[in-house]
Amino acid sequence: MAIRQGRYTLNLTTRPSIIGNAAVVGKTEGEGPLKAEFDHIYTDDSLGEASFEKAESTLQREAVIRALDKAGKVPSDVDYILAGDLLNQCTGSSFGLRDLGIPFLGLYGACSTMSLALGLASLLVDTKAANLAVAATSSHFCSAERQFRQPLEYGGQRPPTAQRTATAAGASVIAPSDPNKPCVEAVTFGKMADLGVKDANNMGAAMAPAAAETIASFLNDTGLAPDSIDLILTGDLGLVGSSLLKELLKKDYGFDVSRNHTDCGLLLYDIKAQDVHAGGSGCGCAGSVFNSYILRRISAGELKKVLLVATGALMSQTSSLQGETIPSIAHAVLVSKPQNVL
Amino acid sequence: MAIRQGRYTLNLTTRPSIIGNAAVVGKTEGEGPLKAEFDHIYTDDSLGEASFEKAESTLQREAVIRALDKAGKVPSDVDYILAGDLLNQCTGSSFGLRDLGIPFLGLYGACSTMSLALGLASLLVDTKAANLAVAATSSHFCSAERQFRQPLEYGGQRPPTAQRTATAAGASVIAPSDPNKPCVEAVTFGKMADLGVKDANNMGAAMAPAAAETIASFLNDTGLAPDSIDLILTGDLGLVGSSLLKELLKKDYGFDVSRNHTDCGLLLYDIKAQDVHAGGSGCGCAGSVFNSYILRRISAGELKKVLLVATGALMSQTSSLQGETIPSIAHAVLVSKPQNVL
Repeated sequence: MAIRQGRYTLNLTTRPSIIGNAAVVGKTEGEGPLKAEFDHIYTDDSLGEASFEKAESTLQREAVIRALDKAGKVPSDVDYILAGDLLNQCTGSSFGLRDLGIPFLGLYGACSTMSLALGLASLLVDTKAANLAVAATSSHFCSAERQFRQPLEYGGQRPPTAQRTATAAGASVIAPSDPNKPCVEAVTFGKMADLGVKDANNMGAAMAPAAAETIASFLNDTGLAPDSIDLILTGDLGLVGSSLLKELLKKDYGFDVSRNHTDCGLLLYDIKAQDVHAGGSGCGCAGSVFNSYILRRISAGELKKVLLVATGALMSQTSSLQGETIPSIAHAVLVSKPQNVL
Repeated sequence: MAIRQGRYTLNLTTRPSIIGNAAVVGKTEGEGPLKAEFDHIYTDDSLGEASFEKAESTLQREAVIRALDKAGKVPSDVDYILAGDLLNQCTGSSFGLRDLGIPFLGLYGACSTMSLALGLASLLVDTKAANLAVAATSSHFCSAERQFRQPLEYGGQRPPTAQRTATAAGASVIAPSDPNKPCVEAVTFGKMADLGVKDANNMGAAMAPAAAETIASFLNDTGLAPDSIDLILTGDLGLVGSSLLKELLKKDYGFDVSRNHTDCGLLLYDIKAQDVHAGGSGCGCAGSVFNSYILRRISAGELKKVLLVATGALMSQTSSLQGETIPSIAHAVLVSKPQNVL
């Protein structure tokens, strides 16, 4: 049963478990520091499909099928699948999942989708509205580039603050508490923040205030000290946003997270050696890093408590062209080691 | 507490109530048969904004503020707002709601968004994850035309099967059970259906199979006879889809809904006198019809049980240009008269 803790946080008292997870990625992601962690690396980013959009759908579907398989489940076992992506009208998810025959709750949280989906799916299981739920998301460098920026063939230059949309998908399968599996302890759904950043090539700066607010809400509501959490893992703030986040949390909220914060966008690539500017972004960035490296370390007890805080920039190409600022959001999910692992 | 009833339906045992609701519409909608029902009719579809997209955001925000006001609540009372729309990256919702300071769960269900949001918001209240939640959605004829079809200036012709995207927004405020207010009894979240329709000018045909499947799931799960429900109200199947729905429900599932089915897309306009072809569509179609005319009649006890089944076509302009078919979805919410009204 979900019990409200403080103003913004839900304590999921039954501790739903993540009984299966998978991450599949593209070529560049498969050449990064986490290459040994993924379930599959596609060496051809088209995945053999006729368009990048279809490739993204296939990527998301593959993550879901693999996560279910690792949980020993099939699509007909699932009560709800919660998913979203960056493509217009979220077609990465709808076309990827349409054949699975699972009741579908479509979400839009931009790059915050992994924690939005994971938080809601865990809440559905915690409240017994579902017995088995799946949270999934995806992004694709090539479909995002041509939708949000320029066609790849244009060869546009990117400023150093820009991030690379990950070709990656991740999925988590949530079931009632299992003492041998990582569990979801609490969820804080965030409010939108907009400090006036307009530069779509500096999403990290736009999203940092939302991440800071959600993390501060979580810490205030639960009374947990930042150092009692092994890892405060933001979604895709990248180099610029991560540094701003630490500054904002200290200055505006009095929390020092400098010892235990990192960002999926900094973990996914070797930002010095790979041509990714300020790091990774896209729904699949947090989706794939969390559903591979991070969950493996939580499962092994190497990380006892991780606060996943995926962050999203809720703008569109149209809103940017109309001179609008970038409203952002972050949702936090506290995941902890299996009960039976010391 | 939500109890699973059958395979797909959730019985919301605490019967959350809709304690406030509002619908605001544009000029054409305000000239239709429901003109006396709306909270506000804008005679200028720009709403005084510099773009149609900004106008849509203002429309959605207005519906939310009015619904909260009628419920005697302010934004800071609300635990979660659940909203979505048709614009790329759902900016109708994000820009419309960003200043409200309410934790925001972004949804994407295309024109099924009203029942997706209402169902989830009611579930959050039913399970005590929220004490007050708002469900909202919007659409705008002009922003949809230029995004999905042609710029208005082009003056494109539309075939008779096409529907008109409503300039409209609706919002519902959900709280724990109040015997003087309509209540939400049950929710059935749907699966995607795709029978191979490719014609984006015939969305009704694409969405009818999803509506039929969700309605059949609801009736099978609850054991209710179609005639025991005063109104089975689909979202925006329009003329073509409504007729197909009745045929499909009879032929494939053995349910006759011909006496008590109607469609928000047929109620919103006078389809003979107004230039709307097969009827209304857009998230705001079900959003505005349900949150005005329908809830007024439920509140008065004229309608004892209404099954709202908003329907969504989960395609994009890109997927259509790539020759894809149209996956569709429908979510059902059973709303009933206030306990204290006979």
